[in-house]
Amino acid sequence: MSMDGRIADRSGSLAFLDVIGDDVPSDEFESLLTSTDAIVVGASTLRWLLDGGHGWPHGDIATWLVSHDESLVASVGATTAPFRRVEGDVAGIFEAVEASGAARVWLAGGGDLAGQALACDRVDEVVATVAPSVVGAGPALFDHGALAPRAWRLEEARPWGGGAARLRWRRT
Amino acid sequence: MSMDGRIADRSGSLAFLDVIGDDVPSDEFESLLTSTDAIVVGASTLRWLLDGGHGWPHGDIATWLVSHDESLVASVGATTAPFRRVEGDVAGIFEAVEASGAARVWLAGGGDLAGQALACDRVDEVVATVAPSVVGAGPALFDHGALAPRAWRLEEARPWGGGAARLRWRRT
Repeated sequence: MSMDGRIADRSGSLAFLDVIGDDVPSDEFESLLTSTDAIVVGASTLRWLLDGGHGWPHGDIATWLVSHDESLVASVGATTAPFRRVEGDVAGIFEAVEASGAARVWLAGGGDLAGQALACDRVDEVVATVAPSVVGAGPALFDHGALAPRAWRLEEARPWGGGAARLRWRRT
Repeated sequence: MSMDGRIADRSGSLAFLDVIGDDVPSDEFESLLTSTDAIVVGASTLRWLLDGGHGWPHGDIATWLVSHDESLVASVGATTAPFRRVEGDVAGIFEAVEASGAARVWLAGGGDLAGQALACDRVDEVVATVAPSVVGAGPALFDHGALAPRAWRLEEARPWGGGAARLRWRRT
């Protein structure tokens, strides 16, 4: 996210991340992926990846796309692990993900879906890399109009590399 | 700010700060005040203080209130240092503050005014204390629709006390 908690600007651009330098931990994202049983991702985040020509880079991990848009799945193409589209109540979706046997689930974005996951208390850990830049407007790390107060424990607060900071919290 | 970059909830409440524990550096705010030559504050922040019965707690420091509302000054009452109301172009306001001889200026909020100060490149340092709580909606640390990209250098990223994290950046 940016210094002001945004995960994109108003047009959906992630250009604010360009200020992060090259001296960042290179194996960390790989570690996240190898310890991930399933991915939950929202439509806007997936569309951003597809629009950027990135395709869906995690076809080897079971993925749950939360979207009303049936055509999105066709855009993803073939995957080696199941790629499911689901819609409706987010609490029910997370129950289904858990029932599938996935213990460690990466919520790959965006802020609306993260807010809904938080509202039904399905977020155990938040890892935020804070870029040294301000965006000023756009979606935030969590966007939700009616969150109950919840307690978090700060587990990490340190320089991460590339001028970014790393913050990590766990639900208590 | 909250984990998601908010400085208040949608109703203006700062209840999200209540999760910060008591083991916080006690002399830090005092150090900020003694090194401050002038304060610039927006109308919403001042109204929040007055509505909460706090009055204006920094009457001994030269203060510049950015507001169209003339009646606000009367609500502040007597101060030992000059309390000026100004309005209009924020770049011009900061020129006037500098011309008054103030070298170290504390922008006491809120996010709109901070965004305008950033837009005219009048922010040299950002100090953010991140509470271990999520707000989900409300004003952010910086709110502005059209910010130019600017480079910042991370100077501090550490646990601060009370479960909060401390982040500090300087303009490069």
